[in-house]
Amino acid sequence: MPHRFYAPALDAEADRWALGGDEARHLSRVLRLGAGAEVRVFNGRGLERAAVVDLITGGEVVLRLGAALPAARELPFPLTLVQALLKGDAMDAVVRDATMLGVTSIQPMSTGRGEVPAASMAKGGRRGRWQRIAVSSAKQCGRAVVPDVREPIALSEALTRAQPGLLVFLTEPSSRAGAGRLGDLTPPRDEAAVFVGPEGGWTEEEIAAAAAAGAHLVTLGERTLRADAAALVALPVLLYAWGVL
Amino acid sequence: MPHRFYAPALDAEADRWALGGDEARHLSRVLRLGAGAEVRVFNGRGLERAAVVDLITGGEVVLRLGAALPAARELPFPLTLVQALLKGDAMDAVVRDATMLGVTSIQPMSTGRGEVPAASMAKGGRRGRWQRIAVSSAKQCGRAVVPDVREPIALSEALTRAQPGLLVFLTEPSSRAGAGRLGDLTPPRDEAAVFVGPEGGWTEEEIAAAAAAGAHLVTLGERTLRADAAALVALPVLLYAWGVL
Repeated sequence: MPHRFYAPALDAEADRWALGGDEARHLSRVLRLGAGAEVRVFNGRGLERAAVVDLITGGEVVLRLGAALPAARELPFPLTLVQALLKGDAMDAVVRDATMLGVTSIQPMSTGRGEVPAASMAKGGRRGRWQRIAVSSAKQCGRAVVPDVREPIALSEALTRAQPGLLVFLTEPSSRAGAGRLGDLTPPRDEAAVFVGPEGGWTEEEIAAAAAAGAHLVTLGERTLRADAAALVALPVLLYAWGVL
Repeated sequence: MPHRFYAPALDAEADRWALGGDEARHLSRVLRLGAGAEVRVFNGRGLERAAVVDLITGGEVVLRLGAALPAARELPFPLTLVQALLKGDAMDAVVRDATMLGVTSIQPMSTGRGEVPAASMAKGGRRGRWQRIAVSSAKQCGRAVVPDVREPIALSEALTRAQPGLLVFLTEPSSRAGAGRLGDLTPPRDEAAVFVGPEGGWTEEEIAAAAAAGAHLVTLGERTLRADAAALVALPVLLYAWGVL
């Protein structure tokens, strides 16, 4: 598999393309590719093209573009991971892994028991960092689509925005009698959003709000999962159960 | 949930128990628990008991032991993760997550395209480190059983040792026509081992050796998974398909 580079403005018609910034630096300095090297470029929205390095000059790499390539298969419906903000760099791993698993967008969310205020997140430029991680993960796993990482919002707003799609609300085994099994959900007709809570769990009010919004409350077996591992465990099971892994 | 401490020699009969070393330090210095604090202790082989801190003295913590407690449910059959050695600290995360998901042992394995020689692993004390990570993960996720982390061995020996259980051999989507789907495997009658390859993938000879040993070659959908994420994606799907997640 040739190395892949991200060119968000890439179109299907251009004959040549100039990579700049990090992508150019990565190609020429880190990977030390030279003129004649075969690579691929993708635009993060599903277009991927073959390319050959033509010229490396200063901070820029000029590519000769070839045919459009069949990209890795995407999910047949949009899937959003609505993830409660996590401490430290735990969110980095969630963004990386959710991208690998095929989600189309990642919505960070503040919750009652989350220990990370959304405001401090916005200030710290975390969203930009996560978007770069999503790009990097897409490059690595062969996806030509980069998930959109959104600005953090509150759970109540996330519930509203996910309408009228299928809302999947992951709860802890102990938190609610009557929650269904994750794998028993039928696939969405149009789109789906999976809500994963914070380390401290959902509050009773949040669970009630999700139920009131029409979300399907589900549990994932009896195991206690770390908050930063819940999405990576739940998504494969859900995608497998839906026949789209 | 009270804090849990690991006491490998703990039995069901003792009335009092002395914690030493890291466990004592963690209780008294890190968590700053004092006399009267309610905790739990477990022996890593399924026994878990209630306890109350009685006395903290020097580097030792003396507990008064209470009733045996129902431990988190374990898988109904032994499950070994046979994981190709990974670079850097990627193996740490695999051990941590596999423990959370309920495996009963972890067998590190050297392979043709693995970039980490088993010999250098043995020298570096990595096995001891992974065993401590397994203990720590079991404490965190409520398991009273700590998976056994074994010394690294070669794939050929790992295939032999996993006999006569069910051998599940995870291959990349492109590597082999005719591989089955992971989720279509029927549950093991007695025990199972899941083989996960290195970053560079299996060699043709290794795939042939696995097939000759009676392993079920399976793929996990069409996605390209990072080597350090493959186990964490495959295990939930397999356990879900087997009805034991």
